[in-house]
Amino acid sequence: MSLLTLLAFLGACAAAAATGALFSPGSWYRGLDKPAWTPPDWLFPVAWTLLYLAIAVAAWRVAYSGAAVVPLALAVWACQIALNAIWTPVFFGLRRLRGALVILAFLWLAVLATLVCFLAADVLAGLLIVPYLAWLSYAAALNLSVWRRNPDERAIQPSEQVLD
Amino acid sequence: MSLLTLLAFLGACAAAAATGALFSPGSWYRGLDKPAWTPPDWLFPVAWTLLYLAIAVAAWRVAYSGAAVVPLALAVWACQIALNAIWTPVFFGLRRLRGALVILAFLWLAVLATLVCFLAADVLAGLLIVPYLAWLSYAAALNLSVWRRNPDERAIQPSEQVLD
Repeated sequence: MSLLTLLAFLGACAAAAATGALFSPGSWYRGLDKPAWTPPDWLFPVAWTLLYLAIAVAAWRVAYSGAAVVPLALAVWACQIALNAIWTPVFFGLRRLRGALVILAFLWLAVLATLVCFLAADVLAGLLIVPYLAWLSYAAALNLSVWRRNPDERAIQPSEQVLD
Repeated sequence: MSLLTLLAFLGACAAAAATGALFSPGSWYRGLDKPAWTPPDWLFPVAWTLLYLAIAVAAWRVAYSGAAVVPLALAVWACQIALNAIWTPVFFGLRRLRGALVILAFLWLAVLATLVCFLAADVLAGLLIVPYLAWLSYAAALNLSVWRRNPDERAIQPSEQVLD
């Protein structure tokens, strides 16, 4: 099990994680009407760091499992990390609450497919995906609630914006 | 070679491609000082459609090649698609010309690693990555030139913006 492979999976997660720093919540997010069960801000980076580590290690284990499902398993893993990378820019960058929810729905399905494939290849790898799917379910409920509580929130069109 | 696997690789590309529609160039991009060798706007979606198809088929071939390098090859492929997905939001969404160039540098290296791994697994798959690396080299030169020609261009901080 090459360490380079683990580093490459971690690199994919780092690219997705970078959006969290680039598109930070800020005052706009604080001003949104959010449900009482919204987690505190500090929990997001902590949770995501652990989840990214878990899914990178899971992919690494599956990649060397020798199971017949490996090609499909790694393809759906790639699909979920690409979807994961675009959610933050759409939510915090464009402020498209509904568009972000659509992406989250695709992401949730891709992670469910990853979970099923990983379980077939390596049970521990599959279990490492479970917290991720659970967190995404919570995030989807939160995204849905925020969208419904802020019906007048308008999407940003970067192309139409005036600087300053 | 399962068609589902090809669809999952195409799904990863579709997620990255979606950023092109979500973060469209618009008047800000038109107003930038660009070099004479900037391609016409219509060429971008045409080129990217062909490139995404090529890299999805390449990954599909490699996934079933049975080569020892498959785990590393698919891990670097996942890394490059995640980096690919965040370039557009950073360039067109945040208008961070330098930040986008940094991402493009990492993306270029990840695609070079993908090319090397793919060539070792399947020559045709490796060749399918060559146009992508060539296009990224061109895109990096363009990104660099636009950054240097527009030194006063300021990055957007979505969190600090006022809606309308």
